[in-house]
Amino acid sequence: MIDEKLKKELIQKGRDFMKGYKDDDMTADSDFNPSDQQLRLPQPPLCKAAMAGEDKRIALSLDFSGLELNNDVISLIRDRRSSRVYTEENMTLEQLSFLLWATQGIKSIRGKSYATIRTVPCGGARHEFETYLLVRKVEGLAEGIYHYLPMEHAIEFLGECENIENDINETLCGQKWAIKSNVVFYWTMVAYRAEWRYGTHSHRVALLDAGHLCQNLYLGVTALGMGTCGIGAFSHDYCNKVFGIDGEEEYMVYTAPVGTVSPEDRAAEAAFYKFVEDEGL
Amino acid sequence: MIDEKLKKELIQKGRDFMKGYKDDDMTADSDFNPSDQQLRLPQPPLCKAAMAGEDKRIALSLDFSGLELNNDVISLIRDRRSSRVYTEENMTLEQLSFLLWATQGIKSIRGKSYATIRTVPCGGARHEFETYLLVRKVEGLAEGIYHYLPMEHAIEFLGECENIENDINETLCGQKWAIKSNVVFYWTMVAYRAEWRYGTHSHRVALLDAGHLCQNLYLGVTALGMGTCGIGAFSHDYCNKVFGIDGEEEYMVYTAPVGTVSPEDRAAEAAFYKFVEDEGL
Repeated sequence: MIDEKLKKELIQKGRDFMKGYKDDDMTADSDFNPSDQQLRLPQPPLCKAAMAGEDKRIALSLDFSGLELNNDVISLIRDRRSSRVYTEENMTLEQLSFLLWATQGIKSIRGKSYATIRTVPCGGARHEFETYLLVRKVEGLAEGIYHYLPMEHAIEFLGECENIENDINETLCGQKWAIKSNVVFYWTMVAYRAEWRYGTHSHRVALLDAGHLCQNLYLGVTALGMGTCGIGAFSHDYCNKVFGIDGEEEYMVYTAPVGTVSPEDRAAEAAFYKFVEDEGL
Repeated sequence: MIDEKLKKELIQKGRDFMKGYKDDDMTADSDFNPSDQQLRLPQPPLCKAAMAGEDKRIALSLDFSGLELNNDVISLIRDRRSSRVYTEENMTLEQLSFLLWATQGIKSIRGKSYATIRTVPCGGARHEFETYLLVRKVEGLAEGIYHYLPMEHAIEFLGECENIENDINETLCGQKWAIKSNVVFYWTMVAYRAEWRYGTHSHRVALLDAGHLCQNLYLGVTALGMGTCGIGAFSHDYCNKVFGIDGEEEYMVYTAPVGTVSPEDRAAEAAFYKFVEDEGL
């Protein structure tokens, strides 16, 4: 049963959130709403600490000279597409390393330890995101759960999955096509990392920033001749359990499976939009 | 005076918004919360209609062969930076055309008129954004206010500014550095275009999608050897007035000035972060 009034209210709430708090709201005025940075409270760490022992760490190379990359910017932008049909070919560790660098790689540190400057822009250079992976088929890696350590450009193995296809499917609310990907990227937000500087203004901007990094994934994947599709529908409960995050101070924001693709699968891709033809839209 | 309790409440509201509505909330259940698409209500137009007469329209070319582009994907991603110091050199119409195409260009239409497939990904291919420009210094264009027509890949001249530097400064809440840009991009959201399909779930995803398109601006600008910086702080009231939008059904989401840059200005860029050194951070 539809509740039109509630639906309208919630849509208005969503629009208001996108617009930020109003000028006549005390929250917009920093005299009344100083950030913790303005209050000189200690800055939170720039990255989450390692979650596993050093013996679980796999160093990644920043030498991408072995990659075959499409180096034509016009065709990169033009050929970028959402791909949901994967061929389950091999993916190399170098390819994964490139995608981690392109989405969250650290280029330098500002000040002693004020900010990380990364391959993507982020409001106030807060870079409040963490990257987790479900690795299904990457050469040299055991199948399972990983966490990216951007300071070291390394990944750490957090553990095996009992059934990785099931974990991919459940974290992504039953989007079964994703279980044929080589690896799924999961980006969480460590909220206070942004809130320390932006307080009540953090959350709108953080979503824009998560969009930046996913677009770099799209273009990096396109340059590799692979495929991806950003997914905004995921199960917080299931993600929290798989990655061991609390869902309060750190929570899932965006996800994207990455897989090998073939031009021959274009027809299969079209099946995702069959309703358009069926309904004569 | 700080109101710690209110601040905490608003931060929680922001986090909750980012997480979407809870599973036990009736809004997450489409049986109780069908979208207008599920209710078979008519689909809104894929783009906003032209806002000025045809005589105000400037066709743009999709032939980018005359552009000097950095085509190395590694250096594009690495060299992308936020630039706030502009040199006020010339910018060509072809460069502007390339950036409009890279951020919102239409590649094809899905179905009869179900969706536009663009150079950037967007949830459900709704592409609920419109692009406006304040053009200050682009060869062949009169200074003033423009609106992008993606179906025609054209821009239309909406009118002159009384004082364009003042309009740039006021729309961007006094970020004075932006007045030396060649052109400022302003992206609005036509909310119902997304809400028709996603209802109460539209707004979180729309911000991710706005991030995608701005990242393509960053990379397009980097390929051109120019500079940009995404700006999430703008005056809705002033933007509404300048672009003639209602601020309710259509409202500003994200902005980005684009200007010519010189490596010699790196020191001037550092001045924006002087507080880091001053405060020993």
